[in-house]
Amino acid sequence: MIEGIHHVGIAVADLDASIALYTKALGAVLVQRTANDQEGLEAAFLRTGDGEVELMSPTRDDSPVGKFVARRGPGLHHVAFGVKDIRQALADAGAAGCELIDAEPRRGMHGSLIAFIHPKSLGGVLTELVEV
Amino acid sequence: MIEGIHHVGIAVADLDASIALYTKALGAVLVQRTANDQEGLEAAFLRTGDGEVELMSPTRDDSPVGKFVARRGPGLHHVAFGVKDIRQALADAGAAGCELIDAEPRRGMHGSLIAFIHPKSLGGVLTELVEV
Repeated sequence: MIEGIHHVGIAVADLDASIALYTKALGAVLVQRTANDQEGLEAAFLRTGDGEVELMSPTRDDSPVGKFVARRGPGLHHVAFGVKDIRQALADAGAAGCELIDAEPRRGMHGSLIAFIHPKSLGGVLTELVEV
Repeated sequence: MIEGIHHVGIAVADLDASIALYTKALGAVLVQRTANDQEGLEAAFLRTGDGEVELMSPTRDDSPVGKFVARRGPGLHHVAFGVKDIRQALADAGAAGCELIDAEPRRGMHGSLIAFIHPKSLGGVLTELVEV
């Protein structure tokens, strides 16, 4: 069962400018900023009440987020739902015919267990599950 | 101040199939289904814990959602943040330099006061405020 919308992931061109914008325009609060060399991105997590905004800027053009920005431009990248039991949620999605990018949960940048479902299984929406 | 992520809006090609998919794969619960002739769309609101998913299918190719689907394909369309005082939140966004699509709040399909901020002001993300 889904507990709520945990965060939205947003691909941006300029991380510093985007942090400033979300802080000033929407009152979001920067919680953590980190780099992920393997994924080729820098990320900033901003608190927006009970939810979060994850701003991601590519550090390489050939990284997943780099390719996304090249193809579609900056914008909404993924939605993440919080779940109590990620293994059960993954099993349910798989049983419904979804293609799982992560068949097994893995540790995300936050330390939580996460897993992605392929966008082609959910109408073009890259969907993340986060155990909360 | 933002209370949380109220919903994500997802543009879909087939509303019935998408409702069935989100229900089966993610355990979302259909709350309301409605048509909006002025906006040229049919929408379904599905509860996902504390948040909602708004599935939208265009009823005309020249409607805003119809043009979105023609240009980008189905996928994430907008994010909506819940706020306690929408007039103050709009004023804050405007003062930060955001272009407001709705300078004054209006009633959304749910009956709540809503207003949209132009995606060009927020890094390509169409952003909605919902008074909660």
